[in-house]
Amino acid sequence: MTGPRYTPLVASLPATVPFVGPETQERALGQPFKARLGANESVFGPSPKAIAAMADAAQDTWMYGDPENHDLRRAIAAHEGVSAENIIIGEGIDGLLGYLARMVTSPGDAIVTSDGAYPTFNYHVSGFGGILHKMPYKNDHEDPDALLAKAAETDAKLIYFANPDNPMGTWHSAETIENMAANVPDGCLLILDEAYGQFLPAGTLPKIDPSNPNVIRFRTFSKAYGMAGARVGYGIGAPDLITSFNKVRNHFGMSRISQAGALAALNDADYLAEIQTKVAASCARIAKIATDNGLTALPSAANFVAIDCGSDGTFAKAVLDALIAQGVFVRMPFVAPQNRCIRVSAGTESDLDLLSTALPQALATAHQCKSA
Amino acid sequence: MTGPRYTPLVASLPATVPFVGPETQERALGQPFKARLGANESVFGPSPKAIAAMADAAQDTWMYGDPENHDLRRAIAAHEGVSAENIIIGEGIDGLLGYLARMVTSPGDAIVTSDGAYPTFNYHVSGFGGILHKMPYKNDHEDPDALLAKAAETDAKLIYFANPDNPMGTWHSAETIENMAANVPDGCLLILDEAYGQFLPAGTLPKIDPSNPNVIRFRTFSKAYGMAGARVGYGIGAPDLITSFNKVRNHFGMSRISQAGALAALNDADYLAEIQTKVAASCARIAKIATDNGLTALPSAANFVAIDCGSDGTFAKAVLDALIAQGVFVRMPFVAPQNRCIRVSAGTESDLDLLSTALPQALATAHQCKSA
Repeated sequence: MTGPRYTPLVASLPATVPFVGPETQERALGQPFKARLGANESVFGPSPKAIAAMADAAQDTWMYGDPENHDLRRAIAAHEGVSAENIIIGEGIDGLLGYLARMVTSPGDAIVTSDGAYPTFNYHVSGFGGILHKMPYKNDHEDPDALLAKAAETDAKLIYFANPDNPMGTWHSAETIENMAANVPDGCLLILDEAYGQFLPAGTLPKIDPSNPNVIRFRTFSKAYGMAGARVGYGIGAPDLITSFNKVRNHFGMSRISQAGALAALNDADYLAEIQTKVAASCARIAKIATDNGLTALPSAANFVAIDCGSDGTFAKAVLDALIAQGVFVRMPFVAPQNRCIRVSAGTESDLDLLSTALPQALATAHQCKSA
Repeated sequence: MTGPRYTPLVASLPATVPFVGPETQERALGQPFKARLGANESVFGPSPKAIAAMADAAQDTWMYGDPENHDLRRAIAAHEGVSAENIIIGEGIDGLLGYLARMVTSPGDAIVTSDGAYPTFNYHVSGFGGILHKMPYKNDHEDPDALLAKAAETDAKLIYFANPDNPMGTWHSAETIENMAANVPDGCLLILDEAYGQFLPAGTLPKIDPSNPNVIRFRTFSKAYGMAGARVGYGIGAPDLITSFNKVRNHFGMSRISQAGALAALNDADYLAEIQTKVAASCARIAKIATDNGLTALPSAANFVAIDCGSDGTFAKAVLDALIAQGVFVRMPFVAPQNRCIRVSAGTESDLDLLSTALPQALATAHQCKSA
C-alpha cells in the first residue's frame, strides 16, 4: 500500500504554516495570554447587534448558508455604492486570496509583492506554483512605483499591495493609490488589500472605478468589525472577475451564523464609529508607552502600531519573546529592516496597562541578552 | 485595460454551480418554502447544548479560531478511537474534498466515481483538471467492484464512494466496504464519504485501520448533528496524508463559533441518539406516504428517502416541480435511471403533513403533463 500520489507541486510544498496561532503558543507556555495583542483582532469585539444576530442564528445553523450570499452581498454593495455584481463574498480575505491565486497562477507565473508583506498571500501563490518577486519597502512603506516596475519587468499576473500596510501600519494618499491603479500593466491584476481600510484617516480612502478590470479591493469583517473568527471577507471588482470566482469557490462554504452577523455589523454604523475612536485612542496610548520607554512608534493608520525597538531583528525578537513570557502576545515583522520593530494591536485599557508594565522589563531582558 | 489573465484551466471551466440553493429558488418563487426537505439538512436542529455553545461563542468571535483545531481535533479522535494525528478538520466535507482534489489531481489525471454521485466532488476534480470516469450504479447501489476495476484500468488517483449513498440512500455491508478498502489499487486513494454514516444500521459501519494509507473517511457535523450552516467536517486517515492537508488548507479558515458548536455537539451523545430515532421515524413515514400514493420508497440508511415515482426522469421532474410549486422543497437524482426518483429529507411531523397533502396533487399534475 503506497498511499496517495500527490501532484509534483504539492509534493514539493513545505509543510510550513503562515502563522503560528496564539492558542498554539499558549499551549507551549502552559497558560493563556493575559493580553492578546498579536493578531490585529479587535479586542473591543463585534457590535452588540452582531453578537445578538449570531446568537439568534445559532438555532438556524441546521440550514446551509445561502450560497449566493444574496442579502449580505446586496447590503455590502449598497454600503460601498456599487452594484451587487461588483461584490464577491468569501471565507475571509484569506479564502478569497486563495481562490484568486488559483484563478490566475500557473506554475512559473510571476507574482509581485513586497518583501515582508502578508505571508498568507505568499503561501497561496507558492501553493499554486507562482514565482514571488518581492520588492523592498521604502522608508517602511510599500513602494508602489517599484511594484509596478517589477510587474512590468516580469510580466506579472498579480501585484499584492496592502493599504494601510500590515505589518508596518503605514499608508499612502488616495492620489498615490489611484495613480497606482491607473498604471497597472495590461494583463496584471492589482490586489488592493484594505483589511484595515476603515482605520485610514478621513479622505485617504482611494476612489477606484469598480469596473476597472485591473484592480480588486479586499475588505473584511475581521478587523474594524471585530469578527475575525467568523470568516467573512469581500472583494470589490469588475463583474467578469467577480463572476469568475464562481468557477472555483466553495459555494456552500460560508457559515450561516457569520452571514447573519456580518449583515448586522454592517448596519451598525454607530458602533463602527465608536470602534474607530477607541482604536485611535488605543494606538495613541501604545505610541506613548513606546516613547516613555525611549522607543519610536511608527505612525499607523491601522488597528496596531509598529514600535521601532531601536536595534536589529535579533533585539526586537528578544523584546517580543520577553513580552510573550510575561503573557503579552504580540508579533513582529519577518524581514529586515522592518524586523527591528514589534507590532502591537490596539487593546483595552487593561491590556495596555499590562503592556506598560511588561515592556520595560522586556527591554531590560533584551538588553541583557544583547550584552551577554 | 485587459483585466486578469486566468490560467488556461480556469478559463476553460464553466460557471456552473453544483447545486442551486433553496434560497435562490425561494427568491424565484417569490415566497419561502413551507417545508425544507431538499438538502438533507436536519430539521430537528443542533443539540440545545451546541446552540448554547454557539450563542455563547458569538461574543468571542473577535478572535480567530485556533488554526490547529486543537480541542475539537482531540475530541473527535477520542470519539473515533484514533489518534489526533489521524484527524483533519476542515470547512465541511466540501472544503476537505476541494483540498484533497487539489493535493492529488494534475490536469489529465484519472479520477473514478459513480455516475450520479456527489456533484460537488466532480466540481472540485474538474476544477483541478481531473478526468472523471463515472461508473453506473448497480440496482441503485454504488458498485464497489466496478469502481475498483475502473480505478485499476485507468490508473486512477482517487475513488469517490459514499456509504450510505447520496442521493439513493442505499448502503453496503461493513464487510463489503472493508473488502473494498483492502483492494484499493496501489497509488490510489479511496475517499469513503460517510456524511450519513451515523444513520447506518447498527453494526454496518466498517472497521478500517486508520493507518491504511489508501483510504480516507469523511464525516460531518452537517447531517446527524444538524449543523450544516456551521461548516465543520473531518477526515480520518493515515498521518502522512493528514499532515499533507497543511500544505494547502486555509489554516485560519474555521469559524470559531463553529468549532465551539461542534465540540458541544460531539459531547451530547444522548441528543444524537434522539435524532437517529426521529430520523428513522420520519423516513418511515415518508416511505408510508410514498406507498399510500402508489409509489415505492427505496430502503434508506440516511436521513432522506428516494421515492421511485414509477416512470422516467421527466415524470419525476414534473412531480418535483409540482411539489416545489406547493412550497415543498425536495431534490432529485441527476442521472438515469436513478432520476426516476425524487429525494425527500427527513422532516418534522408538520413538514410531512405538507408532503402528504402535496404529493397526491403533484402526482396528478405530473400525470396531466405526461398525457398532454
